[in-house]
Amino acid sequence: MNPKRCAACKYLRRRCPKDCVFSPYFPPNDPQKFACVHRIYGAGNVSKMLQQLPDQTRAEAVESLCFEAKCRVDDPVYGCVGIIHLLKTQIQKTQNELAKTQAEIAVAQTKLSQTHISDFM
Amino acid sequence: MNPKRCAACKYLRRRCPKDCVFSPYFPPNDPQKFACVHRIYGAGNVSKMLQQLPDQTRAEAVESLCFEAKCRVDDPVYGCVGIIHLLKTQIQKTQNELAKTQAEIAVAQTKLSQTHISDFM
Repeated sequence: MNPKRCAACKYLRRRCPKDCVFSPYFPPNDPQKFACVHRIYGAGNVSKMLQQLPDQTRAEAVESLCFEAKCRVDDPVYGCVGIIHLLKTQIQKTQNELAKTQAEIAVAQTKLSQTHISDFM
Repeated sequence: MNPKRCAACKYLRRRCPKDCVFSPYFPPNDPQKFACVHRIYGAGNVSKMLQQLPDQTRAEAVESLCFEAKCRVDDPVYGCVGIIHLLKTQIQKTQNELAKTQAEIAVAQTKLSQTHISDFM
């Protein structure tokens, strides 16, 4: 029996094995992190997804799964697809502003070149 | 027994009940759609998530869950968080371009006003 069970094993009320797939990514001091992915994906699915990945990519996979799970808890209809929509709107807005500013610069440069021509007349 | 089982019930090899929670969103002609969310979330979690939502939001919830599941299948480490990073990079790039263009317009306007002043001298 490991007295310092990881947050996942504590949540699942089981002993934390030495080779626990959750233990490196779910420290006991952050129980909410596991509760969130467990609620959305289920412990079995998270374990399966991690086991299919090489060790060196698992920490990042856990972070992205936690992020997506938290988004889904916060917004049960759109999850982090809601964030993607917001960002796409922001890109559209910035691109429109850029196009407008580029049009303004074209007008300013035309005026500038016309003024220079009139300097020589 | 319903002869036209939805894609979910077909996948789960069960009869499709009249009040099937999956049936309106997983038509029998698109089996891949259910296979994808099942692989990532599990049928039980998807069913639970849908049942917690009012009817009129379920179709959009299914679409966003399918999108996220497909992203996770395509990119098991980052899922659709990878897309969020890409979009944020694109916003940063567009904002930089906008700032550069706004600086250019400021220079052009300064030159223009100086040329106008010299017209009067």
